[in-house]
Amino acid sequence: MATTVVGTSVRRGDLRAKVTGDAKYVADIALPGLLHGKTLRSTVAHARIARIDTRRALALPGVKAVLTHHNVPRVLHAGSPAPRSVSLTRDQYILDDKVRYWGESVAVVAATSEQIAEEALALIDVEYEALPAVFSVEDALLPGAPLIHDRGPGGNLVMAPIVCVRGDFEKGFAEADLIVEGEYEGGRPTPAYMEPNVCTCQWDGDGGLTVWISTQTAFMVRGIMAEVLGLPLHKVRVLVDHMGGGFGAKQDLFQTEFLCALLAREAQRPVRMEFSREETFVGGRSRHPAKVWLKQGFKKDGTLTARQARIVYNSGAYGSHGPGVTIVGTMALTSLYRCENVHLEGRCVYTNSPIAGAFRGYGVVQTYYALDIQMDEAAVALGMDPAELKLKNAVREGDIAPSNHPLIGHGLADCIRRGQQEVDWAALRQRERSASGVRRRGWGMGCEMHGSSAYPGIKEQGNAIVKMNEDGSVTLLTGTAALGTGAHTVLAQIVAEDLGIAFESVAVVHGDTDVVPWDIGAFASHTTYMGGRAAQMAAGEVKRQLLERAGGLLEASAADLEVHAGMITVRGTDRCISVQGAVRPTQGTPAPQFVGSASYQPTKSYSFAAHFVEVEVDTETGRIAVVQVVPVHEIGKVIHPIAAAGQIEGGVQQGIGHTLYEDYQIDPHNGRSLNANFVDYKMPLSMDMPPIRTVILETAPDPGGPFGAKGVGEDPIVAIGPAIANAVFDAIGVRFRHYPIKPEQVLAALAAQQTSGSAA
Amino acid sequence: MATTVVGTSVRRGDLRAKVTGDAKYVADIALPGLLHGKTLRSTVAHARIARIDTRRALALPGVKAVLTHHNVPRVLHAGSPAPRSVSLTRDQYILDDKVRYWGESVAVVAATSEQIAEEALALIDVEYEALPAVFSVEDALLPGAPLIHDRGPGGNLVMAPIVCVRGDFEKGFAEADLIVEGEYEGGRPTPAYMEPNVCTCQWDGDGGLTVWISTQTAFMVRGIMAEVLGLPLHKVRVLVDHMGGGFGAKQDLFQTEFLCALLAREAQRPVRMEFSREETFVGGRSRHPAKVWLKQGFKKDGTLTARQARIVYNSGAYGSHGPGVTIVGTMALTSLYRCENVHLEGRCVYTNSPIAGAFRGYGVVQTYYALDIQMDEAAVALGMDPAELKLKNAVREGDIAPSNHPLIGHGLADCIRRGQQEVDWAALRQRERSASGVRRRGWGMGCEMHGSSAYPGIKEQGNAIVKMNEDGSVTLLTGTAALGTGAHTVLAQIVAEDLGIAFESVAVVHGDTDVVPWDIGAFASHTTYMGGRAAQMAAGEVKRQLLERAGGLLEASAADLEVHAGMITVRGTDRCISVQGAVRPTQGTPAPQFVGSASYQPTKSYSFAAHFVEVEVDTETGRIAVVQVVPVHEIGKVIHPIAAAGQIEGGVQQGIGHTLYEDYQIDPHNGRSLNANFVDYKMPLSMDMPPIRTVILETAPDPGGPFGAKGVGEDPIVAIGPAIANAVFDAIGVRFRHYPIKPEQVLAALAAQQTSGSAA
Repeated sequence: MATTVVGTSVRRGDLRAKVTGDAKYVADIALPGLLHGKTLRSTVAHARIARIDTRRALALPGVKAVLTHHNVPRVLHAGSPAPRSVSLTRDQYILDDKVRYWGESVAVVAATSEQIAEEALALIDVEYEALPAVFSVEDALLPGAPLIHDRGPGGNLVMAPIVCVRGDFEKGFAEADLIVEGEYEGGRPTPAYMEPNVCTCQWDGDGGLTVWISTQTAFMVRGIMAEVLGLPLHKVRVLVDHMGGGFGAKQDLFQTEFLCALLAREAQRPVRMEFSREETFVGGRSRHPAKVWLKQGFKKDGTLTARQARIVYNSGAYGSHGPGVTIVGTMALTSLYRCENVHLEGRCVYTNSPIAGAFRGYGVVQTYYALDIQMDEAAVALGMDPAELKLKNAVREGDIAPSNHPLIGHGLADCIRRGQQEVDWAALRQRERSASGVRRRGWGMGCEMHGSSAYPGIKEQGNAIVKMNEDGSVTLLTGTAALGTGAHTVLAQIVAEDLGIAFESVAVVHGDTDVVPWDIGAFASHTTYMGGRAAQMAAGEVKRQLLERAGGLLEASAADLEVHAGMITVRGTDRCISVQGAVRPTQGTPAPQFVGSASYQPTKSYSFAAHFVEVEVDTETGRIAVVQVVPVHEIGKVIHPIAAAGQIEGGVQQGIGHTLYEDYQIDPHNGRSLNANFVDYKMPLSMDMPPIRTVILETAPDPGGPFGAKGVGEDPIVAIGPAIANAVFDAIGVRFRHYPIKPEQVLAALAAQQTSGSAA
Repeated sequence: MATTVVGTSVRRGDLRAKVTGDAKYVADIALPGLLHGKTLRSTVAHARIARIDTRRALALPGVKAVLTHHNVPRVLHAGSPAPRSVSLTRDQYILDDKVRYWGESVAVVAATSEQIAEEALALIDVEYEALPAVFSVEDALLPGAPLIHDRGPGGNLVMAPIVCVRGDFEKGFAEADLIVEGEYEGGRPTPAYMEPNVCTCQWDGDGGLTVWISTQTAFMVRGIMAEVLGLPLHKVRVLVDHMGGGFGAKQDLFQTEFLCALLAREAQRPVRMEFSREETFVGGRSRHPAKVWLKQGFKKDGTLTARQARIVYNSGAYGSHGPGVTIVGTMALTSLYRCENVHLEGRCVYTNSPIAGAFRGYGVVQTYYALDIQMDEAAVALGMDPAELKLKNAVREGDIAPSNHPLIGHGLADCIRRGQQEVDWAALRQRERSASGVRRRGWGMGCEMHGSSAYPGIKEQGNAIVKMNEDGSVTLLTGTAALGTGAHTVLAQIVAEDLGIAFESVAVVHGDTDVVPWDIGAFASHTTYMGGRAAQMAAGEVKRQLLERAGGLLEASAADLEVHAGMITVRGTDRCISVQGAVRPTQGTPAPQFVGSASYQPTKSYSFAAHFVEVEVDTETGRIAVVQVVPVHEIGKVIHPIAAAGQIEGGVQQGIGHTLYEDYQIDPHNGRSLNANFVDYKMPLSMDMPPIRTVILETAPDPGGPFGAKGVGEDPIVAIGPAIANAVFDAIGVRFRHYPIKPEQVLAALAAQQTSGSAA
């Protein structure tokens, strides 16, 4: 279908406001009488609070409220507002008489200034009764390990292990000509969004609560706030306009939001709680550190015969998204490279460490890092081109996806082939490599697939309301969030395209739960796919009403009409009426209000990518530089090329960070945070970034997405990691099976390589 | 139909906020960098502006913008945002090089404080070139009178006269046994709302305008602002939450709002313009002063044979609602008391006086004052009980209403009969009256009928969106305004009743044109009737979706289900599911978002009233005191008895004010305002109010209204006036044919009566 708005990089609706600083974020909300809330955090990793005395803090002038576990409701909450029964743990009190990690909230203060609140924190006396702590999953799983929670299936397991069996893996291994086996490990990157977590709570005298919060999931926040505070849903209003990123972690509710609401109720004034940068680490969410033991069998020709894996995710002190991440990350190993015989076990374990949560790539980054590196290892062992080995085994049309529905198209193979062409992979494979230079270059590639709305066990849902103004311009009401991705520009394009009006004639209303229809939230790569389709359906309903009306005015059947550029024409004639002329509400034969609403429960959809990467390893410093990246993505119809490319470039940058630099570290002896700041926690800056030559394919449009579009949000962070690790192997012959790969490790490995004389 | 929420006086949703002062009005909106706008007003009634020099004002520190006719767009606007082609005049520039009444805007200033803005006004030099002025309609209609506008059908007519002919009035008069003829006159009361007009305008950098404004017609404001400023509709956002009254006059846009927007654009900062109390008189809108010449013929038995009238409305310097008021007020004389032979002429005339506009009772107060007093005069002449004369001629089921549709029920007769019973009218008629006491009491009665959505020539329209939250609570999105009448409580009751949920489970979102569906505005007594019906229809659509869903879950036909108190039950069984259980969006078989929208174009509906009044005339002071009022109203189904009674009591109070006290006066020599303040412009205070024993009948429900409800907003101000005048005649035998009836006029009339010796 030819489109005029969809597929073009229109100017983003939020562009000017963002670049000029006009855009209002939650921290910009000024309210009369606003108080500032601050959190006292635990100085031990595991302890009972023997005594806590807030009297000196309360006596400080300017202090309006102090809360501890003694005076907050003892309500277990999930720590996250996503659908709990499936993927989340209900294991966290608002404040507890026990702390389970260094930095956990112990008390909060609301005061007339941030300084006074900080001073008051120092006046709270806490006496801890220390408990033995465990920081690694190995220690946590030892018999007799200290129990962090008195819930769960036993020991420190967050949940019963996930076991997935398909076919007969033992038979598969028996039939294999080659078996490759290894242990892979992922570190603890954090989302490090620009905008620290912030919320402001205000009660009205009728018991209604307004929450301004930087969240990806406004309706989930509404739901869990209402549940925890005992309010009906229409008494909680959640507001969020612009956001400075989220990357999945802003799906979670931390303890702060409940405490903010409770402080505001106690003080009878609005309260703002804004995380410092340090708190975004300490009190925020990281990716789950994980260990993946993976074993695969191959025929000589590269055909996969069996796959077995045991995955252990470190959830930290609370469960949060642990179950969901474990399910999604484990199930991902059923696919990408097709294999009939699969045996997978996924575990999620409590430790006295910072809480891991949802983060772009949701469990899959860890398992596909293992899988794609091991495919590279197998290719070496088989003497095959790794790209060809992956192509041979790439999932195909009709294969069953991790979310149990048949895949559409050959998107993965398309990506691999196109990437091979783009970089002239065959020639690269043949080139001479120097094993002696100081700076050695290598190429690698990695693959991924990621679902839109493919959260297993949850039926997702997009909703939209479209109303047409009396001049033919329209307003879209959507519950999707403005994370910063340009998603609302994309939704407006879809509505404009469907109605045959200009992009500029579509306004988007969002970020107010009182007003917009319910939305599950901006995660799982589904805003364009699901929210966009709902918007398209609602626009279609308005178009139906409009054409029915225009048909009456033009004495034609609505089926014979077409809308384009604001004019409604009887097809094949010059009889026409302007959209505006058809919409007049008061004059002549007045038009009714044209309103369409739609509720869309999608099937699940997968996007694909293959990333081709060149790296340069400095053998003197151990530093790995990414020289160039060619990410090839198949995402169905592209709605806004620049926004889609922006998602990909951002994901590549973040993936480079995770693979080479980023690791939020805690002291293995006491759980104390070691690098909770942007000096010690190193992220790639713009000057660290290589050229990225993005290629977007539209070869497998999904009939469930608007104009065939699929998601792209999470995909680009997944494949870049193993592509880099594989390129490093290509460059220096050292196989790294963990991230981040640090210079000192490179140097150590090169030294060991020289000692053993086994350079590739 | 038995109802559980509808028909009960639930606690108003806005109650607490209003009584505690928490409710936010437009003047409470605080914006960073807010400037204050002030208006320089003309000191002459009719002049050309020969020269205007703003240089000294602009040089004053703190002054950010000054606008005169030299630097505002020269756009003719209607002065009002209601549908223009039918009822409104497009005769007003934002600022003109001519002034047409004393107090007209000449220049505006925006400055950092109100004081600086006021100081700056004094620094603007204006040189007027005076023109001859006319203040009375008689003078304005004289041949050779100075022309106030160079538009219109000729002379100072705002519009071509309205002529309505039914039957043969000359034949009717020829057949009459009695002809009564008289001239009646109405003064210039003003709405005198608690909250002065106020608006705040702010531009965003993308050319979008946000307007906070105390208005009854947010969408009309959006439309005319967009038109005048050359913006598409979705670039204008109009916001209004609470309002302190409007009474019709806040349908109008004055010049202020455009100037506020232009000042904000010029200064690149938000600007607030708030009327002083004086400006609500000078720059606001009053009721149209009117003269009604009325002649009627009667048979001896009281049967009306003919009615002829000539009505002249004084529009002041601009047309505003003049045409609409003239049409509605003139056409009203086709009805109330049935008459086959009617000849009516309505005129609307420019004068150099303050602008008249829309005001509760919209043209009908003036004509029914004449009609109902003349009926009383006829009864005296015929020797009949005036109530019986009116009852005999009262409009009946099937009679054609002024808006040309057949009336439903015998509401007027019902009101008259019930009022007779309530006050024991027959006995009152028989009682002894003293013609000698200092304080003499008398009884009178008056009648009225008033349309809901009965604006002739305009197809009105109500719209609503209802969405259900996942706990079964719902949100109504409505474009209707919160004038202060409790209308949104009424709409929430209707939605709750229809969905079988508690009133407290319904939230109402209103007052944001970006968000809610289009609405024509809160006027013409149609919020409950039309907006309420639209809300009911939208709720019905949600209920249909809900029951369809519940039917699937309960394995029953949706037709067999009933909803009550939050439970959905299969009729006649104990199989049930909670509303909440049926609405879950993510778990089990998830529910879609339940959203209903409705667009309702009503037929027109009429409510009726008869007011019975006792007055006491102090013959020494001339003061008329209202001793008691028994207003009997027939309004179809009563949704909220206390709110309906509140409308009636408020209307009675306002009507007493207009009949006895309120008259905004201008100097007949120069047009200067004489009493633009609450000391000199006297309104009845609570201690001036008599007991009011309101009776509400539900004898003629309208099938077009929600649960049969009709309007009640305008009705109560109409009948009280002639009832008082008739009671004064009953008390002292003096016939007053104008309002307000002032003590000095009473004394003069009593003196004349004594002189002529003709006491009744």
